Amino acid sequence: MSTDARILVVNPNSNEAVTAGLAEALAGYVLPGGPRIDCVTLREGPFNIETQADIESVVLPLARLVAHEKPTATVIACFSDPGVQGCREATRGPVFGMREAGILAALARADRFGIIAVQTRSIRRHLRAVREIGVTDRLAGDRALEITVADAAADDRAFARLVEVGRTLRDIDGAEALVLGCAGMARHRAPLEAELGVPIIEPVQAAVGMALGAILAR
Amino acid sequence: MSTDARILVVNPNSNEAVTAGLAEALAGYVLPGGPRIDCVTLREGPFNIETQADIESVVLPLARLVAHEKPTATVIACFSDPGVQGCREATRGPVFGMREAGILAALARADRFGIIAVQTRSIRRHLRAVREIGVTDRLAGDRALEITVADAAADDRAFARLVEVGRTLRDIDGAEALVLGCAGMARHRAPLEAELGVPIIEPVQAAVGMALGAILAR
Amino acid sequence: MSTDARILVVNPNSNEAVTAGLAEALAGYVLPGGPRIDCVTLREGPFNIETQADIESVVLPLARLVAHEKPTATVIACFSDPGVQGCREATRGPVFGMREAGILAALARADRFGIIAVQTRSIRRHLRAVREIGVTDRLAGDRALEITVADAAADDRAFARLVEVGRTLRDIDGAEALVLGCAGMARHRAPLEAELGVPIIEPVQAAVGMALGAILAR
Amino acid sequence: MSTDARILVVNPNSNEAVTAGLAEALAGYVLPGGPRIDCVTLREGPFNIETQADIESVVLPLARLVAHEKPTATVIACFSDPGVQGCREATRGPVFGMREAGILAALARADRFGIIAVQTRSIRRHLRAVREIGVTDRLAGDRALEITVADAAADDRAFARLVEVGRTLRDIDGAEALVLGCAGMARHRAPLEAELGVPIIEPVQAAVGMALGAILAR
Amino acid sequence: MSTDARILVVNPNSNEAVTAGLAEALAGYVLPGGPRIDCVTLREGPFNIETQADIESVVLPLARLVAHEKPTATVIACFSDPGVQGCREATRGPVFGMREAGILAALARADRFGIIAVQTRSIRRHLRAVREIGVTDRLAGDRALEITVADAAADDRAFARLVEVGRTLRDIDGAEALVLGCAGMARHRAPLEAELGVPIIEPVQAAVGMALGAILAR
Amino acid sequence: MSTDARILVVNPNSNEAVTAGLAEALAGYVLPGGPRIDCVTLREGPFNIETQADIESVVLPLARLVAHEKPTATVIACFSDPGVQGCREATRGPVFGMREAGILAALARADRFGIIAVQTRSIRRHLRAVREIGVTDRLAGDRALEITVADAAADDRAFARLVEVGRTLRDIDGAEALVLGCAGMARHRAPLEAELGVPIIEPVQAAVGMALGAILAR
Repeated sequence: MSTDARILVVNPNSNEAVTAGLAEALAGYVLPGGPRIDCVTLREGPFNIETQADIESVVLPLARLVAHEKPTATVIACFSDPGVQGCREATRGPVFGMREAGILAALARADRFGIIAVQTRSIRRHLRAVREIGVTDRLAGDRALEITVADAAADDRAFARLVEVGRTLRDIDGAEALVLGCAGMARHRAPLEAELGVPIIEPVQAAVGMALGAILAR
Repeated sequence: MSTDARILVVNPNSNEAVTAGLAEALAGYVLPGGPRIDCVTLREGPFNIETQADIESVVLPLARLVAHEKPTATVIACFSDPGVQGCREATRGPVFGMREAGILAALARADRFGIIAVQTRSIRRHLRAVREIGVTDRLAGDRALEITVADAAADDRAFARLVEVGRTLRDIDGAEALVLGCAGMARHRAPLEAELGVPIIEPVQAAVGMALGAILAR
Repeated sequence: MSTDARILVVNPNSNEAVTAGLAEALAGYVLPGGPRIDCVTLREGPFNIETQADIESVVLPLARLVAHEKPTATVIACFSDPGVQGCREATRGPVFGMREAGILAALARADRFGIIAVQTRSIRRHLRAVREIGVTDRLAGDRALEITVADAAADDRAFARLVEVGRTLRDIDGAEALVLGCAGMARHRAPLEAELGVPIIEPVQAAVGMALGAILAR
Repeated sequence: MSTDARILVVNPNSNEAVTAGLAEALAGYVLPGGPRIDCVTLREGPFNIETQADIESVVLPLARLVAHEKPTATVIACFSDPGVQGCREATRGPVFGMREAGILAALARADRFGIIAVQTRSIRRHLRAVREIGVTDRLAGDRALEITVADAAADDRAFARLVEVGRTLRDIDGAEALVLGCAGMARHRAPLEAELGVPIIEPVQAAVGMALGAILAR
Repeated sequence: MSTDARILVVNPNSNEAVTAGLAEALAGYVLPGGPRIDCVTLREGPFNIETQADIESVVLPLARLVAHEKPTATVIACFSDPGVQGCREATRGPVFGMREAGILAALARADRFGIIAVQTRSIRRHLRAVREIGVTDRLAGDRALEITVADAAADDRAFARLVEVGRTLRDIDGAEALVLGCAGMARHRAPLEAELGVPIIEPVQAAVGMALGAILAR
Repeated sequence: MSTDARILVVNPNSNEAVTAGLAEALAGYVLPGGPRIDCVTLREGPFNIETQADIESVVLPLARLVAHEKPTATVIACFSDPGVQGCREATRGPVFGMREAGILAALARADRFGIIAVQTRSIRRHLRAVREIGVTDRLAGDRALEITVADAAADDRAFARLVEVGRTLRDIDGAEALVLGCAGMARHRAPLEAELGVPIIEPVQAAVGMALGAILAR
């Protein structure tokens, strides 16, 4: 690792609160002697990424940002994984999408995994992504909290729903590890894991772990 | 992460030179403030792991070792991934097999990947593992160096064969990332990546990256 | 077939009552002029095989037994299929796992099949095995009796549960053949088939059929 | 098993020499106290089954034959598996297609299997069948002898080609078990297995083994 | 396209009312200067096609009809797709099965699709067909109206059931396009699409569209 | 079909010669009383679409164009299928990508298909697309002409290469239908089909056929 290595974690929406949450979620990954971890906001991004048009609107700006910043490694911190392919063409360093990294991390922990979606409407996109990775047969289930993204990041009621949905995925669907399907629920990871007794994957953390795995190699 | 976190990297064969090589390969992952990384030799292991009987002979000793050591995270550093399931039952922390971690890390870098086997006879085991993960359609090819494990770790001729086999996987089979199919080739990773221009995954490093991803979460 | 051909049916747990049940279940397969069928108990086995550690504890003893006995063909009579790979390396004759044989026999009878598990916790292992065989798309469902293994072998209440669970697999899940997910339910096979009108596969019998298919060839 | 149990092995073409060959291939499966094994010729069948029209021409006659004969179990002895579905509707007993049974028997012996076709043009049908079973990922290869069916049954040159093609499947394609892709090559099975050192499956024998597995159950 | 091009749409059952319904469903596809579209009844067909024997009884008559008529393109207008393979061998022009064409058309409109079956018992055949095409992972669900075929073609109650079942497929199963699983429901297509807001595929229309795609090429 | 129905065929690169070629390839699909077929050039497109950045640069302009034009149906006439998802969100009418439509049309004609790529480097994208559709097991092969796109549209040498590559796909790989992997080779379709004797799919024509199938329904 070069002494000025850094991991660029990009929030592709323009909501600065989300970016601040990323930095908080990743505080444990910042180590003396390790790479810098810069969490940045994509200024051109919409405030929320919800539609296919939202996803597509950030693809070129992300590639430009990465081409300009030249980070040692890049993490796209949105569960729709926008622009990963384009960013890979725009930079020499590795580029990780948080959804893909989260799913792969779950596969390394258990045979069958579940996804906790925020909204039902995003499940279709998740299923497509799982099929594209090729691991549909290992997906135990994908169930939605049916709360707003804002509520997902907040504390008490969201946690109760996480426990409820996670328990269904574990007990009815047979999931042995769970992926949090949104960038803003890191604070719930440890308590949820303690409550449910199965590995809970926070995908931005998983992506940063993979980035460390790639760039600490000599 | 607790202040005394540590990653136990177990060499399941009893060849101490292999264990020393692991420590060298992982030197970049030891960071101030980060978890200890302990590379240990399974004393009960055979000098080489080649047959199904060799694999099975280390399963129970590995589980006993892990149950006794209680590491924060465990990496099984043999490309046959012996005992991963049993170790997961024997400890609360995450357990990573290097073959599985290496393959998953490759999937996070490119669409189709290749495996560089040391010997042709191990390709069958690789294909089975890839099918069990569920990603056969993403395997571009698996080709063997056809050299001894000892030679694989040594320097010049092994590198020439790595370049030759890697080039075939890249150009004929269409592999966009390559996994080194043995624990002892870490020294060739960076030069091979420079030579071939595609990501080269050293699987023990990939597994340790995943372990960091799991245990640095707060 | 040589005149002293024999099929070794190994019960990998040390419960002699299970072994006696195997002999009873296989009585119809013992024919004048046909191979001997020896049902034996693995002395080193645990009384029950429930955990991954139980499975792994019998792998090496099974291989040693088979290497010593040199049977014409071997059947591993436990629905976890422990040690099949190792036994194949330890003997020249064919080695059949009952779970795999039962599933393959069901595939030869109908398009989609179901599995009747004894306990919910074993369903996860079944799903993994079905995926490893490669036929997840042909699995209609896997549902548990949720009774003890001892009760499964006993008579009346177990049968009522078998009918109930089997009917659900047939009518709700669309299973056209059913596999009994435990070595001790042979006595229920014929009455269940009569009750439900779909093929019921007793996996030890299926494995012995496959063994006959292999060793009666000249 | 009822005392008058019998397995009906139907040759769907009208070539009596093929039927005689079936009886010879199955001689080892006729045991005192076991089911009768009747090898019969479908009179309405064409002399050879080569085209899709040939296959379809025997479907209804096969169903009528089976409905009339009411065997305990039926084996369709043609590697195109004609009429298996219709026969299953026409009779209560189990109906086995030799191609499907041969492939399933190979899956019970090894991880990846190969098929030795007689003619290249039948490989396409084999691939479709393997995909319908669901096990394409376990097919190592399918290679043709490129000889006539008549030559396949004859002795010396056919065997030399079998060794040649089988060795390629084993060494280049990685097949660990081989299925003979035609009903008339049973005499080559044992010598080929001795020569190549991997299980050689004769599919009519495999189907009769499965039939025994089904009907010897009490 | 030659000036006397024509698409032969064959109703393989002998119910003339079904054939009349096909002509009505396809009226929009008859264009000045375009190919003739001839809807014909297979005289040899049974009044209903329900069993495997019914399906098989029409295979050879269909091939004879097509061989005699020599149409530019052929559509088999029965959701069991009987005789498609045989007809392809009997004619040089393209032959489309309505089930396959309907499913492929749905795949071109959305990521995951549903099938509205008339009767539960046909779902098994649908699942087999979807698996043979290779797209099981894209099937969101297959649910039955549980009405008679005659009622399906009639007006009011059938439509209410179509809305009910279609809504379940859309909302619970996540289907983003729906295939009508019977040749007689074309009149419901447009109102159902208006009601549910997702593409509704009438499979005979889809097959004729594919036929136009093939034969209008110069 | 409304009387002013029209199919918008968009060439996403800015090369007007390509658009003119599309109109010529589709001349046979323009029928009196049928929908208009408008071939248009995306002004914002690059002159060639080669890189991931090229693909992504046209996604938003395509969606804007479609939202503004409000065609009855849309065909994206570039074998990379750029912007199909976004266009589906931007318009109520069906949107077809030529690559996906060409592959689906091939699946309706034969069991296994091949793709004739222009350049080797695009094969990787094809393989990904085939996997996303879910039909990797039906792909017989994908081989490149290794000529320029300009040469592919020109006459004599390109045809010789098409015959050569197509013959290899048919005879070595077992393809029973072939998809032309570029929008500019329509003139070669009929002669190539005559030469090789298997269906040759021109994907823009296939997409327009699917569009007719969708919009001629009443």
